[in-house]
Amino acid sequence: MTDSPPITRTVGELRRHIAGWRAAGHTVALVPTMGALHEGHLSLIDLACRKAARTVVSIFVNPAQFGENEDLDTYPRDEPRDLALIAAHKGDLVFAPDVAEMYPVDFATSVDVAALARSLCGASRPGHFSGVATVVTKLLNQVRADLAVFGEKDFQQLLVIRRLARDLDIETEILGAPIVREKDGLALSSRNRYLDKRERGLAPQIYKTIVTVAEQIRGGSSIGQASGWGARVLSQSGFKVEYLEVRNATTLDALKGRLAPGTPARVFAAARLGRTRLIDNVDVFAS
Amino acid sequence: MTDSPPITRTVGELRRHIAGWRAAGHTVALVPTMGALHEGHLSLIDLACRKAARTVVSIFVNPAQFGENEDLDTYPRDEPRDLALIAAHKGDLVFAPDVAEMYPVDFATSVDVAALARSLCGASRPGHFSGVATVVTKLLNQVRADLAVFGEKDFQQLLVIRRLARDLDIETEILGAPIVREKDGLALSSRNRYLDKRERGLAPQIYKTIVTVAEQIRGGSSIGQASGWGARVLSQSGFKVEYLEVRNATTLDALKGRLAPGTPARVFAAARLGRTRLIDNVDVFAS
Repeated sequence: MTDSPPITRTVGELRRHIAGWRAAGHTVALVPTMGALHEGHLSLIDLACRKAARTVVSIFVNPAQFGENEDLDTYPRDEPRDLALIAAHKGDLVFAPDVAEMYPVDFATSVDVAALARSLCGASRPGHFSGVATVVTKLLNQVRADLAVFGEKDFQQLLVIRRLARDLDIETEILGAPIVREKDGLALSSRNRYLDKRERGLAPQIYKTIVTVAEQIRGGSSIGQASGWGARVLSQSGFKVEYLEVRNATTLDALKGRLAPGTPARVFAAARLGRTRLIDNVDVFAS
Repeated sequence: MTDSPPITRTVGELRRHIAGWRAAGHTVALVPTMGALHEGHLSLIDLACRKAARTVVSIFVNPAQFGENEDLDTYPRDEPRDLALIAAHKGDLVFAPDVAEMYPVDFATSVDVAALARSLCGASRPGHFSGVATVVTKLLNQVRADLAVFGEKDFQQLLVIRRLARDLDIETEILGAPIVREKDGLALSSRNRYLDKRERGLAPQIYKTIVTVAEQIRGGSSIGQASGWGARVLSQSGFKVEYLEVRNATTLDALKGRLAPGTPARVFAAARLGRTRLIDNVDVFAS
């Protein structure tokens, strides 16, 4: 058993903790989460602890990034379990504010990263990335960490955050960490627990399919053909495919024809199984 | 003659200067300007110098806050004169970046304060306050000052900035400073130099009118009647009135009927004389 780290519920308390660390000369890392922690989150905490002397883990289910018909109310919450996991992984401080602390009644500001937020998940979840960008801007300004770690499973989110941090002159380095997967390839997600047994059996098909799409593109197939094939395979397996696309991994620009050498490219997919929305992505050259 | 303060053109240089001040234990103030300094700006610099040990004055004509048909190209620029004035008023550092330093080619982020940015000047200048909010968020994050000073002439802008700083957890206190006026009452503005002699003679009518509107409201007139009267007077004097409105001075909510005691209220006006757009505002209770 490891002692639980302190939990702060207010920005003021959070800042006092961090000021103490800064006065002692410590570097600081931030790992923003929505709780319901799994091995993917824990890998982010481990990375943060390796890179900085002190690590803050935030737990905040951010209403602003959920759409009207999305799963805000049912999103899994289990703070005691989360705290035990953070303690076991040597997180130094938990910041778990309530909604009123983050969004006072006359809150009126939004941050938007237009060029990166309209395609892929942004097309089917209007407002989602603005909600993410706004809360992450707040967290980055609250903590003023040396670095903040985000998972590559939400790769588009990572690009949005990297861009807003640069554009708004936030002095925190944004680190991406690789996707953690189940043995059968399914990317870890707090939403995987929504899957019933049959759906859980089908779910790894997303990863297998986008890996095969990446192989086809490396082998010289046209991007349109390969991604069209992948979308058909998933549909025929019982997924409702939202998108399966190959995009520039830096700009998210659409790619066409055969992949030009040297282009950073990723295969991105989002698909529903029943009421559960799953996303995944792979690097075309390292999958 | 006072020595000119150093001029920095890059965020990196700016931060090195400020880090030096911080290491020496100095407090820091920021005065953001678009140059073309007049006594109004100088009063902001004076206030900043009284409140903090070191004052940065930024000079940046921010393209993002000008509309397509506005005066970005002709906006007055006179850096040597501005530098001499900043030196005379004991500014410690000038930050004068070029557009590429502030907005790299793939810049994609915007900050918006919806509730405060749609009415008054926001209605006739779509995108203006988002351009202001974005550049000010950048400047505040670049400088990380203890306080930043803005003029009350742009009162709506001051409210937008105060709100975004709170909402985005920027740890800089936002101070407003009173409007500086010519002897005849005209609020100082870099755009006053656009006025020809006849227009310059008419221009103080804006201030006189909104002071009279405030007196009428204090005297018990209905807000609608008093502001309607004011708009007619300005139109008849040759102004093209964009708005003349009485609003809650904190929320900018519209006010109707007789003013309820204790309501913070201001009279706001924007009107054109020829090609020149003038704005002004007064506190209903202190004008």
